[in-house]
Amino acid sequence: MYSPSEQNYIQQLSIDCVIFGYWEKQLNVLVPKLDLRGDFWALPGGFIVQEESIDQAAQRILKDRTGIRDIYLQQFRVFGEARRNNAELLERMSELNQDKLGSVWLNAKELEWITRRFVSIGYYALVDSRKVVPRKSGVDETIGWYPIKQLPTLIMDHNEIVAQALEALRSTIDQKLLAFNLLPETFTMKELQELYEAIFDKPFARNNFQKKILDMNVLERLEKKFTGAANKAPYLYRFQR
Amino acid sequence: MYSPSEQNYIQQLSIDCVIFGYWEKQLNVLVPKLDLRGDFWALPGGFIVQEESIDQAAQRILKDRTGIRDIYLQQFRVFGEARRNNAELLERMSELNQDKLGSVWLNAKELEWITRRFVSIGYYALVDSRKVVPRKSGVDETIGWYPIKQLPTLIMDHNEIVAQALEALRSTIDQKLLAFNLLPETFTMKELQELYEAIFDKPFARNNFQKKILDMNVLERLEKKFTGAANKAPYLYRFQR
Repeated sequence: MYSPSEQNYIQQLSIDCVIFGYWEKQLNVLVPKLDLRGDFWALPGGFIVQEESIDQAAQRILKDRTGIRDIYLQQFRVFGEARRNNAELLERMSELNQDKLGSVWLNAKELEWITRRFVSIGYYALVDSRKVVPRKSGVDETIGWYPIKQLPTLIMDHNEIVAQALEALRSTIDQKLLAFNLLPETFTMKELQELYEAIFDKPFARNNFQKKILDMNVLERLEKKFTGAANKAPYLYRFQR
Repeated sequence: MYSPSEQNYIQQLSIDCVIFGYWEKQLNVLVPKLDLRGDFWALPGGFIVQEESIDQAAQRILKDRTGIRDIYLQQFRVFGEARRNNAELLERMSELNQDKLGSVWLNAKELEWITRRFVSIGYYALVDSRKVVPRKSGVDETIGWYPIKQLPTLIMDHNEIVAQALEALRSTIDQKLLAFNLLPETFTMKELQELYEAIFDKPFARNNFQKKILDMNVLERLEKKFTGAANKAPYLYRFQR
């Protein structure tokens, strides 16, 4: 990631990924911490090789930086302010008298390359955190899940990128339910409501919620969940194929 | 637009604008025809100056290519296939033994610059066609509105960009109503329904439509429209401030 050359990568264009995971009624975001003296958290990101599409680049970056493969990534917004650059990070590296990122040394040309203005394409995904085990890359000290309300301060505009990803998720969740793997194969209406409540950070009225979801016509109702108390057993649902 | 240099512009990154206008119950798209021997229609597009944000670039490009200023432009998608380039256009120029675009000559360096792969950020806008008078730029032979169902064949993936812009418009129109200027200051429910029908290219049931819109709580009801037949006069509405 940090050995860019003009030949290989499109210049001044990057990709940043916001990976959401959901468990215990809470949304979490996967964030690596860069291997620098000092606290630098940054979204998993990287650049676009000349011969790959932006979607392929996003998949490759995510695999390289987190070990996660083949998940549904969705571009949601471009971050293109005129003064958007790595100046802050590089100033701190300079203060720390450090000229490598993790185990990767940057030469003068690479430093110049990476300090220019970058336009960044934001991607987000929702993953089933029970099925993925993130691993850190060579430039990272650690990688971990953080509750969305307790994110550390990220470099550049990365906190804003997370906020915008959440906005995008909220505005498209109805259409995206099928594409993502946030819930187990089968689930109760209550579990689905809890997911919506975590995403929107507000309670929904049970009856209205159930009506709205059933009106979407995307669920298939299965047998009742066995709880021992037959009368109160909730139905299980799954998404229609 | 066509005198790019590495110093001024971000390389391999462009912007393309889909400008929708609405009248006579029909959606139309504003498309310039390039001033070349041969039929080359292309969305109004251009590049990003180092010192401007992508939103500023989109506004500048639209003003330069169509004369339209200060309209609400919304980025909606990035087009980033690996083989996305101007090869087709430049091959045709070469066949035609023509090495200028409109009144602008391209030198070898500029030709090389513009033939590389480009990632393009798509923007769309909805304009009140009664208030704007498009004018062609120096690289264009004509500029005109085309009904969305009768668009000419555009260069590169520009027809696909229009299709994706329409998709984006459909999925966000409820939130976007306020931001756009598609309708006059005041309008009837029927006029609003006709706008939705033009965008979605399908009829809506009157009662359901009215309920849906009123439930959005964005309209203010005014006096009845004077038609001479008092009983049947429809209410006028406007968007709340």
